[in-house]
Amino acid sequence: MNNDKIGSYSFVAEPFHCDFSGRLTLGVLGNHLLNCAGFHATDRGFGIATLNESNYTWVLSRLAIELTDLPRQYQPFTVETWVENVYRLFTDRNFALKDREGRTLGYARSVWAMINLDTRKPADLLALHGGSITDYVCDAPCPIEKPSRIKVSTTEPQATLQAKYSDIDINGHFNSIRYIEHILDLFPLEAFRERRIRRFEMAYVAESYYGDTLQLFADPEEADGTVSIEVRKPEGEVACRSKVVWENK
Amino acid sequence: MNNDKIGSYSFVAEPFHCDFSGRLTLGVLGNHLLNCAGFHATDRGFGIATLNESNYTWVLSRLAIELTDLPRQYQPFTVETWVENVYRLFTDRNFALKDREGRTLGYARSVWAMINLDTRKPADLLALHGGSITDYVCDAPCPIEKPSRIKVSTTEPQATLQAKYSDIDINGHFNSIRYIEHILDLFPLEAFRERRIRRFEMAYVAESYYGDTLQLFADPEEADGTVSIEVRKPEGEVACRSKVVWENK
Repeated sequence: MNNDKIGSYSFVAEPFHCDFSGRLTLGVLGNHLLNCAGFHATDRGFGIATLNESNYTWVLSRLAIELTDLPRQYQPFTVETWVENVYRLFTDRNFALKDREGRTLGYARSVWAMINLDTRKPADLLALHGGSITDYVCDAPCPIEKPSRIKVSTTEPQATLQAKYSDIDINGHFNSIRYIEHILDLFPLEAFRERRIRRFEMAYVAESYYGDTLQLFADPEEADGTVSIEVRKPEGEVACRSKVVWENK
Repeated sequence: MNNDKIGSYSFVAEPFHCDFSGRLTLGVLGNHLLNCAGFHATDRGFGIATLNESNYTWVLSRLAIELTDLPRQYQPFTVETWVENVYRLFTDRNFALKDREGRTLGYARSVWAMINLDTRKPADLLALHGGSITDYVCDAPCPIEKPSRIKVSTTEPQATLQAKYSDIDINGHFNSIRYIEHILDLFPLEAFRERRIRRFEMAYVAESYYGDTLQLFADPEEADGTVSIEVRKPEGEVACRSKVVWENK
């Protein structure tokens, strides 16, 4: 029953998509997840290409990834994705990451809204295409926590960057994947050598634009390995928040 | 005759691999070219996976790309690649970029050496695998100029950056593709809006490492639209050079 509801897409960990340890980076994994969301939606008639004609687009609101391992350079891997819930203004889409033997390396959860490109107002997902998206709701297991609330209290930025050409996506916004890279770049290489990221979360709050000066604030690591991060725009408005949960290898 | 010598690999321009104008970025194209070089070499028995076992690796020395257009978001495209020449210490590998209708969008030329990972000394390509790489030399046309000499004379850096986690590749070196992105980021978004890059060159000179402070020097644009760029390491040693040739749309 779930076979038609779950999309399955295969990739290979390309050399320049791996970090110094030879593992796929979380930014590249995030890119694959977002692409798979697009493939899955397009194949079922509620993709961005169809929607763009009707002047709507999907907007990623939350992403949470939890992993026990990552594919190594040249290793094939598969991303499975399905829709868990559809509400009026949001939909929950889940993912499973599997290695070439079909072993699960981790899961991800994402939350999406659909907006009208002219009004920037959210669309009613239950009304879209006669609510046909609900036909694809699937109860496949995704045994990781939902995206959580992220709070950052530090007032001293750890890094400052200016949004450049390579940071900007086709919508003229700061690229969702680039945020992930800039956030990971807050940590020294040794952190990635000595420990691993067990869980990674992104909460996309407001768009930022070419030329924006972004400040990255990171709270001290908590006892359970959690580091909460906030990216703020020039006037202090939050662009996105992130949570990185480290564990010893 | 050339059919077996030319490798052909198909891709789609993914959303997060396109810039604000909806065109594939040169960094992503560069990544595809390098991957295709790897696929082509591996399929013919002189790939990096085979070589790593024998403790050798391919090192990219030069890359020159000349384009009339770039694939748009979601458009399929094909990269063809073949070996043009094999010398004792270098090999010339060429590329053609084609759209879904088979129209050529541009060409690229690259120069590679092979080094021993222990001694860092170059290998004799004509001796490797009994010189079998020469069996694949192919005279397909590549009507663009060879990589040129790049000279930069300015003494004031235009940008300074520190090599971070996301900049470092599996060999512990600054990622060849990341250099391309940082170099393009020297130019304002308006440059990409109002003009286009007709030709782009990279000359990789020396490795840089995590934590290195890199300074980017760019000479003023010449009358023909050429901007010459040099990336220097902390002690002034050159890491790479680049040439960006702009033209009006």
